[in-house]
Amino acid sequence: EAFPALDHGFVRVIDYMGDDAAVVQAARVSYGRGTRKVSEDAGLIRYLMRHWHSTPFEMCEIKFHVKLPIFIARQWIRHRTANVNEYSARYSILDKEFYIPASENLSAQSTLNRQGRGEVLEGAEAARVLDLLREDSERAYRGYAEMLNQDEDGAQADPSRSGLARELARMNLSLNYYTQWYWKVDLHNLMHFLRLRADSHAQYEIRVYADIMIDIMNRWVPSTAEAFREYRLGAASLSATGL
Amino acid sequence: EAFPALDHGFVRVIDYMGDDAAVVQAARVSYGRGTRKVSEDAGLIRYLMRHWHSTPFEMCEIKFHVKLPIFIARQWIRHRTANVNEYSARYSILDKEFYIPASENLSAQSTLNRQGRGEVLEGAEAARVLDLLREDSERAYRGYAEMLNQDEDGAQADPSRSGLARELARMNLSLNYYTQWYWKVDLHNLMHFLRLRADSHAQYEIRVYADIMIDIMNRWVPSTAEAFREYRLGAASLSATGL
Amino acid sequence: EAFPALDHGFVRVIDYMGDDAAVVQAARVSYGRGTRKVSEDAGLIRYLMRHWHSTPFEMCEIKFHVKLPIFIARQWIRHRTANVNEYSARYSILDKEFYIPASENLSAQSTLNRQGRGEVLEGAEAARVLDLLREDSERAYRGYAEMLNQDEDGAQADPSRSGLARELARMNLSLNYYTQWYWKVDLHNLMHFLRLRADSHAQYEIRVYADIMIDIMNRWVPSTAEAFREYRLGAASLSATGL
Amino acid sequence: EAFPALDHGFVRVIDYMGDDAAVVQAARVSYGRGTRKVSEDAGLIRYLMRHWHSTPFEMCEIKFHVKLPIFIARQWIRHRTANVNEYSARYSILDKEFYIPASENLSAQSTLNRQGRGEVLEGAEAARVLDLLREDSERAYRGYAEMLNQDEDGAQADPSRSGLARELARMNLSLNYYTQWYWKVDLHNLMHFLRLRADSHAQYEIRVYADIMIDIMNRWVPSTAEAFREYRLGAASLSATGL
Ligand SMILES: Cc1cc2nc3c(=O)[nH]c(=O)nc-3n(C[C@H](O)[C@H](O)[C@H](O)COP(=O)(O)OP(=O)(O)OC[C@H]3O[C@@H](n4cnc5c(N)ncnc54)[C@H](O)[C@@H]3O)c2cc1C
Ligand SMILES: Cc1cc2nc3c(=O)[nH]c(=O)nc-3n(C[C@H](O)[C@H](O)[C@H](O)COP(=O)(O)OP(=O)(O)OC[C@H]3O[C@@H](n4cnc5c(N)ncnc54)[C@H](O)[C@@H]3O)c2cc1C
Ligand SMILES: Cc1cc2nc3c(=O)[nH]c(=O)nc-3n(C[C@H](O)[C@H](O)[C@H](O)COP(=O)(O)OP(=O)(O)OC[C@H]3O[C@@H](n4cnc5c(N)ncnc54)[C@H](O)[C@@H]3O)c2cc1C
Ligand SMILES: Cc1cc2nc3c(=O)[nH]c(=O)nc-3n(C[C@H](O)[C@H](O)[C@H](O)COP(=O)(O)OP(=O)(O)OC[C@H]3O[C@@H](n4cnc5c(N)ncnc54)[C@H](O)[C@@H]3O)c2cc1C
Repeated sequence: EAFPALDHGFVRVIDYMGDDAAVVQAARVSYGRGTRKVSEDAGLIRYLMRHWHSTPFEMCEIKFHVKLPIFIARQWIRHRTANVNEYSARYSILDKEFYIPASENLSAQSTLNRQGRGEVLEGAEAARVLDLLREDSERAYRGYAEMLNQDEDGAQADPSRSGLARELARMNLSLNYYTQWYWKVDLHNLMHFLRLRADSHAQYEIRVYADIMIDIMNRWVPSTAEAFREYRLGAASLSATGL
Repeated sequence: EAFPALDHGFVRVIDYMGDDAAVVQAARVSYGRGTRKVSEDAGLIRYLMRHWHSTPFEMCEIKFHVKLPIFIARQWIRHRTANVNEYSARYSILDKEFYIPASENLSAQSTLNRQGRGEVLEGAEAARVLDLLREDSERAYRGYAEMLNQDEDGAQADPSRSGLARELARMNLSLNYYTQWYWKVDLHNLMHFLRLRADSHAQYEIRVYADIMIDIMNRWVPSTAEAFREYRLGAASLSATGL
Repeated sequence: EAFPALDHGFVRVIDYMGDDAAVVQAARVSYGRGTRKVSEDAGLIRYLMRHWHSTPFEMCEIKFHVKLPIFIARQWIRHRTANVNEYSARYSILDKEFYIPASENLSAQSTLNRQGRGEVLEGAEAARVLDLLREDSERAYRGYAEMLNQDEDGAQADPSRSGLARELARMNLSLNYYTQWYWKVDLHNLMHFLRLRADSHAQYEIRVYADIMIDIMNRWVPSTAEAFREYRLGAASLSATGL
Repeated sequence: EAFPALDHGFVRVIDYMGDDAAVVQAARVSYGRGTRKVSEDAGLIRYLMRHWHSTPFEMCEIKFHVKLPIFIARQWIRHRTANVNEYSARYSILDKEFYIPASENLSAQSTLNRQGRGEVLEGAEAARVLDLLREDSERAYRGYAEMLNQDEDGAQADPSRSGLARELARMNLSLNYYTQWYWKVDLHNLMHFLRLRADSHAQYEIRVYADIMIDIMNRWVPSTAEAFREYRLGAASLSATGL
């Protein structure tokens, strides 16, 4: 089952290992005999979350197949505590699939936050932006295919030409082209990713993926997901002076 | 099923995710359409191993429950690319279980290799060492229990005493006492561990564990295990000058 | 300059790279031209700390030489985001140096917190504990030296004996023996370490080291140290429900 | 001093910590008193390299400022054991700088190696590729600036338009646009990077950077660089069967 994301992307769970019970089981190794008194699993999970006892959450692992625009992949890959295998544009030809924002996500630069969005663009300006994005993306692919001397199905176009190496031709594609990868991560570092990327400071397009993954967490590890909302996503921090 | 190791230790597989097929599947994401020609999985796995394409091996994960002497745990934990939850001697009382080498493993210091063993000790010297190890270990535990003011079952010994904090009392125990942990690692880093710890330069006691884990690999991921023996364990390196 | 810690330990700064200015410099690479408006370095550092923009703090690095009891080294080494070279007890003979707590740190087990300390032990019980720790530690070393067939200076004791391998003999030593290592870490992960280990839930003996390192931070990176106290050490978290 | 790379890129050393002597110093902590006999530093370094004693090399750290095309940054960032701060295209406007290969690097797809290059393109095909790359890159920037409603100097173009958010507009740029970052890494992981990226299987454009960094290593840590060439770069591996 693939959860759709943006216009051509998706998130698909390939496999996972462990669940809420595995977190508890690992925590109980630490506490050994002493755990007889901790009666409730969800309570123990909340306790671990609240006190940043993060290693039991590392005992669960999940593997996703994700299709996403390259400019989002560039943000995502900055999370180093994960395992990745990406589609190789040196080895294979990229599909002609690029991201065009829906009009309600076509926002102006924020005037308050240098790293954020402001009002949604409207009317002629919005239309022009959409046209421009689409045209330039189309043209980028035409250039790519022409340099490769191949069409999308891999058939040679002009027998008198050699075709540029794939690893070079791909540099003509724009950052809204889609790539895909397998991305595997433990539950602790997944939550670290989600805390940063489901946050309002993150770019809308990566938040779409983060939100899907939070839904997946809700079903996969409901107690951990609840504690995560309580002590991370929905929590606030008071500084020393603020206290 | 727990595989026994040394006199009181063991290795037990708690869970795993993926196998040879998952390595291949991840490699094929990278190679995309291009993979139609790679006909044989074992061949692809050998290719990845030989060319240090290590990320597809990170797509498999395994979780062990291990019981091991503390001096071995100290070597093991140096491998940072793993997830660990250890029994807490701050929280719980350690069992009275310590490692005493079998006589055939009671070796003299090597005279050639400052970090290794030489001939097996014999006769009176061997007997004396075994007695000494056993006596000192027993005495360490007596001191531990006395300071705790508790017997091994947790019953208070002398009601007039408070008992020293567990986190302090444990420092009286010697390095041959057993601890235990959950240890989770991906297949690539497991092989890195095994290459270093199943090697003849590693201390015998950790090699015992490494050898068990190689047996487990043989059954879990037979093609990867074979490629590992071929290109890592059994391979040799020629230096530039040697070539 | 070595800062003494516990009865025989120390923390010594070997080298470092970067300081507050390097944090700011790295943050400004991210913000490029846009940074003209951020007028004040300390303000930018507080901003980064408050918003968990942790990567600029990774741009500073510090290397310590630390001497510490083994049971503390076992807690410390759990922090995997560091570089370590430890004295090898396979290669060399350990010194006869073990930790004995000062009497004001000789506490009973807490009755409220299974992982903590309660009242300080007094009178006969305290005296007995100190005697016991000292005696057992002394005896452990006697056994060690006898098995090695060497005195502390490495001279052979009995020419008729071979001496047990160092890697085996050391297992007779107790966990309060001192070891030493070089420990190198970036500033972000140092603060992560300090947040967990200067905390009241951490064992007193590791807090002693953490406190020294906070002092070092105060001098090395004063603005970062201040922001760290404000937004980490002295801060509190409000859960979603609490809000 | 910035070492130029490709048509607009560079590598600049910002700072470093430690050198050959620091590697030796760390190794000697491990070997303690035992080291009196190792007379020669370069010999010890070769020994460490040959036996994969990698942790002493982690004791040196180096920080680079690198300017590089995005498609190369995407390969580079896969090396997770480093610290990075990248120019933010959400925060700031990217310069109009893109990579166009020199004609001698404009190669056809290899027919033998799906992930490599073959013959250099010639004549009309080469000319057409260069034109196409240049035109499409120029056009991509025109679209970018138009959507931003800003020229390269940040001046507003059309006061009646709001301008698209920077984080969105940048997706129109192609993968040959330049980005820049601070990249900090320890010497062990730098060598791991260089082994993979100075290799003939790596794409030419990243090899250019790797080669510059090897030159830097030669001056920074000459003994380590020599051992690296001897036991890694120039070495070969014999499989178990091959032996
Ligand atoms: C010629 C070539 C072709 C390539 N082709 C592809 C391709 O088609 N598709 C593709 O996806 N990639 C490809 N790569 C990238 C490759 O898979 C690696 O991602 C990259 O080389 C970085 O190597 P590394 O993981 O060893 O380095 P680092 O990330 O620096 O890691 C070094 C070591 O640290 C450990 N480590 C670090 N982080 C982690 C972690 N989070 N979890 C576990 N262990 C960790 C591992 O032991 C690792 O070996 C290619 C690389 C090369 C050189
Ligand atoms: C008061 C206290 C009590 C404790 N009690 C116990 C106990 O009873 N049992 C026990 O086992 N431990 C116990 N610990 C240790 C604790 O579980 C951590 O191992 C330790 O605090 C190190 O924290 P860390 O993992 O965040 O640090 P680091 O290892 O430095 O990691 C920092 C961050 O880097 C990432 N990271 C680094 N390496 C990896 C990796 N290989 N894989 C995935 N992510 C990685 C993670 O995001 C991690 O949070 C205790 C710690 C404290 C402070
Ligand atoms: C025979 C033998 C003798 C030894 N003697 C000594 C000794 O005398 N003294 C001593 O201190 N140690 C000694 N060691 C331990 C050794 O130095 C390593 O700590 C241990 O083997 C773990 O190896 P690793 O670092 O490659 O593994 P991991 O920690 O699992 O790391 C795997 C790879 O991931 C990357 N990586 C992971 N974490 C980090 C990080 N935080 N920063 C940068 N890169 C990272 C590196 O590329 C690393 O190579 C010895 C080991 C062996 C096998
Ligand atoms: C809103 C927002 C804006 C951002 N803006 C920018 C920007 O302008 N420029 C920019 O460059 N980045 C930017 N980033 C990316 C950010 O700096 C981080 O790279 C990214 O969020 C990943 O976080 P991380 O390092 O904590 O995650 P991970 O890499 O998953 O690491 C988790 C933890 O593991 C430990 N760790 C893992 N690998 C290592 C390692 N090799 N060395 C040391 N410790 C390690 C650290 O403790 C780390 O905190 C932004 C991120 C967000 C969310």
